[in-house]
Amino acid sequence: MSKYQELKRTCYEANMELPAQGLVIFTFGNVSAVDRQEGVFAIKPSGVDYAVLRPEDIVIVDFDCQVVEGTMRPSSDTKTHAFLYREWSEIGGISHTHATYSVAWAQAQQDIPIFGTTHADYLTSDIPCAPPMGDELIKGNYEHMTGQQIVDCFTEKGLSYQEVEMVLLGNHGPFTWGKTAAKSVFNSKLLEELARMAYLTLQINPDAPRLKEALIKKHWERKHGKDAYYGQN
Amino acid sequence: MSKYQELKRTCYEANMELPAQGLVIFTFGNVSAVDRQEGVFAIKPSGVDYAVLRPEDIVIVDFDCQVVEGTMRPSSDTKTHAFLYREWSEIGGISHTHATYSVAWAQAQQDIPIFGTTHADYLTSDIPCAPPMGDELIKGNYEHMTGQQIVDCFTEKGLSYQEVEMVLLGNHGPFTWGKTAAKSVFNSKLLEELARMAYLTLQINPDAPRLKEALIKKHWERKHGKDAYYGQN
Amino acid sequence: MSKYQELKRTCYEANMELPAQGLVIFTFGNVSAVDRQEGVFAIKPSGVDYAVLRPEDIVIVDFDCQVVEGTMRPSSDTKTHAFLYREWSEIGGISHTHATYSVAWAQAQQDIPIFGTTHADYLTSDIPCAPPMGDELIKGNYEHMTGQQIVDCFTEKGLSYQEVEMVLLGNHGPFTWGKTAAKSVFNSKLLEELARMAYLTLQINPDAPRLKEALIKKHWERKHGKDAYYGQN
Amino acid sequence: MSKYQELKRTCYEANMELPAQGLVIFTFGNVSAVDRQEGVFAIKPSGVDYAVLRPEDIVIVDFDCQVVEGTMRPSSDTKTHAFLYREWSEIGGISHTHATYSVAWAQAQQDIPIFGTTHADYLTSDIPCAPPMGDELIKGNYEHMTGQQIVDCFTEKGLSYQEVEMVLLGNHGPFTWGKTAAKSVFNSKLLEELARMAYLTLQINPDAPRLKEALIKKHWERKHGKDAYYGQN
Repeated sequence: MSKYQELKRTCYEANMELPAQGLVIFTFGNVSAVDRQEGVFAIKPSGVDYAVLRPEDIVIVDFDCQVVEGTMRPSSDTKTHAFLYREWSEIGGISHTHATYSVAWAQAQQDIPIFGTTHADYLTSDIPCAPPMGDELIKGNYEHMTGQQIVDCFTEKGLSYQEVEMVLLGNHGPFTWGKTAAKSVFNSKLLEELARMAYLTLQINPDAPRLKEALIKKHWERKHGKDAYYGQN
Repeated sequence: MSKYQELKRTCYEANMELPAQGLVIFTFGNVSAVDRQEGVFAIKPSGVDYAVLRPEDIVIVDFDCQVVEGTMRPSSDTKTHAFLYREWSEIGGISHTHATYSVAWAQAQQDIPIFGTTHADYLTSDIPCAPPMGDELIKGNYEHMTGQQIVDCFTEKGLSYQEVEMVLLGNHGPFTWGKTAAKSVFNSKLLEELARMAYLTLQINPDAPRLKEALIKKHWERKHGKDAYYGQN
Repeated sequence: MSKYQELKRTCYEANMELPAQGLVIFTFGNVSAVDRQEGVFAIKPSGVDYAVLRPEDIVIVDFDCQVVEGTMRPSSDTKTHAFLYREWSEIGGISHTHATYSVAWAQAQQDIPIFGTTHADYLTSDIPCAPPMGDELIKGNYEHMTGQQIVDCFTEKGLSYQEVEMVLLGNHGPFTWGKTAAKSVFNSKLLEELARMAYLTLQINPDAPRLKEALIKKHWERKHGKDAYYGQN
Repeated sequence: MSKYQELKRTCYEANMELPAQGLVIFTFGNVSAVDRQEGVFAIKPSGVDYAVLRPEDIVIVDFDCQVVEGTMRPSSDTKTHAFLYREWSEIGGISHTHATYSVAWAQAQQDIPIFGTTHADYLTSDIPCAPPMGDELIKGNYEHMTGQQIVDCFTEKGLSYQEVEMVLLGNHGPFTWGKTAAKSVFNSKLLEELARMAYLTLQINPDAPRLKEALIKKHWERKHGKDAYYGQN
């Protein structure tokens, strides 16, 4: 029995949440789950339909994207996942979808403004949209540079990947992450709902104001601050 | 056996209607049910996912928000519920959601105009959107002041809480209430549908007129007036 | 056993199609089915939730709206149904809904333009929106005058009720009809889909042209003309 | 036992995917599957509701639209299918739907711009919208000329039917095709999702730029180029 069986199961179940939550159709998207002690991560095989995906199809690769276990080719986005795991030491899972409203904002090449407390309950800034990659980089090691593109976007905007667990790639779609693979899927669903709410808000009022700082701070702190009183912990 | 068992069951079932009606995802929202004779109300515990919520998880608190029965922490919005129960003596249940179209109007900071008879069948005024709270109040007893904010909004606009059983909090989302917890959930669903219809109406015709007074009066009276002939009572 | 049992069953099943097709929530809407030989029609009781509606709850009334059989109060819209059955001798069923996109067009007080062949496969004109009733009429026999309002709209626009089996009432919502109750429900669903397509069309292109006459004629005739070749009859 | 039994089954299952994927209601749409060795294709019978469609109802016709096997009348669009099978020798199946967002773009008479990588993963050009047919042609052999209209559109725009497996007919709706009937249904679903994403993109940003050439090329080549690395083959 593979020593990666539990990791594969975790990765499989997180992947299957994407179609269950209405975030992907066909073969779109992928989720990975990392085991930092073993120096590997599990990821969806490339181009496999969720309707036929099985736990044993999940591929185990190391941080150089070499296959450690599995007979299938890993997701074509594997290099992006590997880049983020190497750069950001505290994340345990990564999700990528082509969810409709998230993609629409990415195609519009606009950050999603923080319009309300639904947003502020989870993050205190606009959801960043990274500009499309330069032509030279696209021709090169594309999926590797996609990871670089995400990290550069966070550096330029002065964002913390531990506070903002999501990004839109211009003209492409969302990547989200978290302490676990399941949390990264949660963030994909959250992002899609925030994208939909912000879209509707601007349709009703194109001049809708951003949420004021006092409310951003309040909602974040009651849930994540040192005197947080939301939830059971 | 707890003397609050039936109250907990009522509260539990009303809470479970929120995801069943598509009004919340994750842990969003909460419903409470009051027992005025006992001077307590039952409310959803804070941050618990509907998928795992059980009747015995419901928390019983008094009107000062002290836990009377239950091992979990009550909703972070408990003080808002308590405020409304104290101020408005005829309500039996309160619901709070982050339903998409309701939140979009709240984020747009606009009242929902009364555009048609679907709206007038239930209330005769626009659905009020309370302006965001002042910064000083936010830093203080926030959830208590949220209740104050709702009551102030009704006072300023001259609205009766028994005729208008719903409000939008600017940048936040909807609170609804009614004679029972189930009725407050009904009102959350109704509000979401009216929010969606009004949104579409303005997309088709930005100059759509408000419903004329004669029709507002007629539809309200045939359902709620002294010679009402709608329904079986 | 009631001699109206089959009529009640037909009416019940047509009513239950409204929530099944996503056209109503709560107690919204109603369907009736006529028996012209007996001079009666069956209709939904007023204010009863579809979730608890039973075939035996259906009310039988004559064309003067007198209850012939049944213990419940008939729909508050019964007089509108009666008016249409009296005026239009060839219709066998009538549906009324508060379906979202249909209501949005009614609230926008605009006819739904004929933009494509989906529309022309079923009717050759825009879907008419009757203007809101005058104040004096509203105060009088409102539901009776609603029937008059529909017939007047068709007379003024020179429409045939046998060719155009649907109308929007300004600020209210749709009424549809047909040779049977089931056909009237079909028309409610068709109208909702045409309303949604037309809404999206104008969002994409505010100057979208109406379908040209040659295509209107072709699609109508291949399905309903004397040399029709659509379908199995 | 009919020698076309397997062909009928293939055609039946592809047709049933249309309502399962939410692409049609009622009797809308049709799918065909070709057997080029036998010189015939299987197609949905005209005007039959998907709820009652059976495999044995599927009609077998030759490329001149003569019925070879079956007791029902074939789809009224049969001549369009036959035209495309004769002109384009490499296609194995054709789908036609009235899916909502696809129809909205067709009614808006606009090509769907290539806005993102979801689009570029499958085709490198805008999705073409053929202009409505001239009045003289409509009066003649309409469904035959619809096939001509599609082929002319591809010729004028310099498109390859093997690279672009979909088209919108102005004021009508989408036709899609592929190596198999199942692939043509996949393309109908893909088109509907791209239509929805592009619609939302323009609502958020009316000046949203087309995807840049370097990204179009990259996404196409990683999936379909000679060094493709997407998928398992």
